[in-house]
Amino acid sequence: MDAERVTAMPRPIVTLTTDFGEDSAYAAALKGSLLQVCPEAALVDLSHSIPPQDVLHAAFFLSEALPWFPPQSIHIVVVDPGVGTARRLICVEWQGQRIVAPDNGVCSLLWRREPPQRIVHIQNCQYFHPQVSNTFHGRDILAPVAGHLANGLDPAVLGPTITDPVPLPFPQPRRQMQRILGEVVFIDHFGNLMTNIHREDWPDVEVVKVELLGIQPRWVQTYGEASRGETVALWSSGGWLEIAVVEGHAAHRLNVGRGVPVIVSIASKGTIP
Amino acid sequence: MDAERVTAMPRPIVTLTTDFGEDSAYAAALKGSLLQVCPEAALVDLSHSIPPQDVLHAAFFLSEALPWFPPQSIHIVVVDPGVGTARRLICVEWQGQRIVAPDNGVCSLLWRREPPQRIVHIQNCQYFHPQVSNTFHGRDILAPVAGHLANGLDPAVLGPTITDPVPLPFPQPRRQMQRILGEVVFIDHFGNLMTNIHREDWPDVEVVKVELLGIQPRWVQTYGEASRGETVALWSSGGWLEIAVVEGHAAHRLNVGRGVPVIVSIASKGTIP
Amino acid sequence: MDAERVTAMPRPIVTLTTDFGEDSAYAAALKGSLLQVCPEAALVDLSHSIPPQDVLHAAFFLSEALPWFPPQSIHIVVVDPGVGTARRLICVEWQGQRIVAPDNGVCSLLWRREPPQRIVHIQNCQYFHPQVSNTFHGRDILAPVAGHLANGLDPAVLGPTITDPVPLPFPQPRRQMQRILGEVVFIDHFGNLMTNIHREDWPDVEVVKVELLGIQPRWVQTYGEASRGETVALWSSGGWLEIAVVEGHAAHRLNVGRGVPVIVSIASKGTIP
Repeated sequence: MDAERVTAMPRPIVTLTTDFGEDSAYAAALKGSLLQVCPEAALVDLSHSIPPQDVLHAAFFLSEALPWFPPQSIHIVVVDPGVGTARRLICVEWQGQRIVAPDNGVCSLLWRREPPQRIVHIQNCQYFHPQVSNTFHGRDILAPVAGHLANGLDPAVLGPTITDPVPLPFPQPRRQMQRILGEVVFIDHFGNLMTNIHREDWPDVEVVKVELLGIQPRWVQTYGEASRGETVALWSSGGWLEIAVVEGHAAHRLNVGRGVPVIVSIASKGTIP
Repeated sequence: MDAERVTAMPRPIVTLTTDFGEDSAYAAALKGSLLQVCPEAALVDLSHSIPPQDVLHAAFFLSEALPWFPPQSIHIVVVDPGVGTARRLICVEWQGQRIVAPDNGVCSLLWRREPPQRIVHIQNCQYFHPQVSNTFHGRDILAPVAGHLANGLDPAVLGPTITDPVPLPFPQPRRQMQRILGEVVFIDHFGNLMTNIHREDWPDVEVVKVELLGIQPRWVQTYGEASRGETVALWSSGGWLEIAVVEGHAAHRLNVGRGVPVIVSIASKGTIP
Repeated sequence: MDAERVTAMPRPIVTLTTDFGEDSAYAAALKGSLLQVCPEAALVDLSHSIPPQDVLHAAFFLSEALPWFPPQSIHIVVVDPGVGTARRLICVEWQGQRIVAPDNGVCSLLWRREPPQRIVHIQNCQYFHPQVSNTFHGRDILAPVAGHLANGLDPAVLGPTITDPVPLPFPQPRRQMQRILGEVVFIDHFGNLMTNIHREDWPDVEVVKVELLGIQPRWVQTYGEASRGETVALWSSGGWLEIAVVEGHAAHRLNVGRGVPVIVSIASKGTIP
């Protein structure tokens, strides 16, 4: 027997992403419900401050965070405007990780680059809490199911595989001659504006100019190139085209919200000397 | 020796509920103080956003969250307007869990349904931090005591058993003929209004009508039955009579705060066809 | 082989202090990046609510929190206005703990009392994420480095030892006859005002009178001595001279911000009967 190996065996990582608020007893109850089933789970709070019922925000959040987690991680996502309706709950396998969530598109930005390995419709109530309330499926279904997965349960026993997950209404950027027409889809905690234009979708182009509301932010590689208060555009650390005010709050300063159009003038790679 | 069993032995779960704020170095110091004594504790943040010194809010919060935790869990609660006065610190055993907290009624909603197994007055300074400050007993007393409990300490050595814990000034609902007169006691993160009327206190009645400030919210089983923006009443996932605006913020919309009266017209079960 | 000892071996404690915000996908990605390298790390959130790029606030925060942690703890600090410039990243060894942070003075209040054991300039990119972005060194460098430290890496291999860390522009109090001239440097979550006057810097004096903006708060040992709403001065639980409104928010009530002068009249110890 190898004591070292035994000791080093990591506890199952289970993360939480909800719109319950940091002050919420709902998040606390959900944690208890999970730990009832799997007391050795290593709980990791991702956020409880997703704007209430904002599935697009949550989808963007997950697409920035989950690619960084190791295989075997389990993620509980509760942003669920449809609770109490017929919407499905699903278990998604993706990059060796597993996500339990409502089937409302919240996972779908994850598989922009890499498709899910399997999606299971969670139906087997043997793994639910004995009493399921009408208003809190996160605590009564998703948390116990995640606990059983953390204990080693095969997702296949949760229910049938599905191939028609609900898509997210994510606005797609359009190519128009030498321009990409996109829009702001996410505003981060610092007020930086994230667009729907992802670097990997346009591998062969170089950015010549960015425009938003008549402003032309300077194109930079990093904030450090610009002076305090300057408006810049750059590829974000997550690969999205981002517009920022250096050491400032772009959304407030430019009075910009989600949906504001962004126009990017481009050239083919190699054509700019 | 069973290596599998050894590995699966969970680390002691220790939760934190405070009014220190998410941005607070006090919560951080408290965590360090606990981990000094019990480095293998599995810390779980419940909330650091209890409104400052709001014991009733904290009591409601705990009553929603703690019933979901497994036996052996340890809970540190620091909502302590009386720090520096003669108020007692106590260790409460309840459903096989242990709570360390000021003796100010913060635990008392928990034992509405099930009485505490034992309450000990924490006096044995052998388990405190060597220097106890005047203003921060959470860090200097409760956290180290919780750490020793997590290490297996018997609560009995902490001090004498007491039978007169300070009660919480919780407003009790009254029965008046075919009506229950209650009030709003808690507003959740979504703005939903929780009343002091609990389903389990009225097992033989059915709700006919709910009134609040002249409004008659429709009685439903789940939000999904109503349309967006509609005001409804229902049993919350915690069993309290709740008034909500579907996908909206009831407290703001109806301009309702704690203490607002709620009148519930009832019938005996089985008399409504 | 001692099974008990094996089981009790604590997982490496890794704490996080950032200005990313509680709602931030950046904190989530940073956690994933750490757990990729060291899945058994015991993550402890200290705060993600440091005011954006406020190095002085973060320095004060750390000086209140980190002395409470056990040796071997690892702390990731990301308050980094200089990301993308030539500022260094460092690994500080202090009281047997290790801190990875930008070299911007954020650690320097820690060594007011006790100097760092060693400071290493983090240069060895073998321990970084394979792709390092221009804007997110917390996720791409500090988190993986902390993960390797948690796995047992010797800090010495990260890079050369340095002896010229960037100092923090921390205002020093001045002695003028029988007075100490200080100022407010930190406002806590409750609105209490913390000054730059630390009890341990003035071991031989007793406070006679405190003045701030013409107000003379009463000197007390603990809040419990004063009545609700009274303005008092006292030694904080962290040893700083603090001005507070009992059960109130001093910063709002007195309209005081950082930098406001505080005058303390003193006597030599033993001269006040």
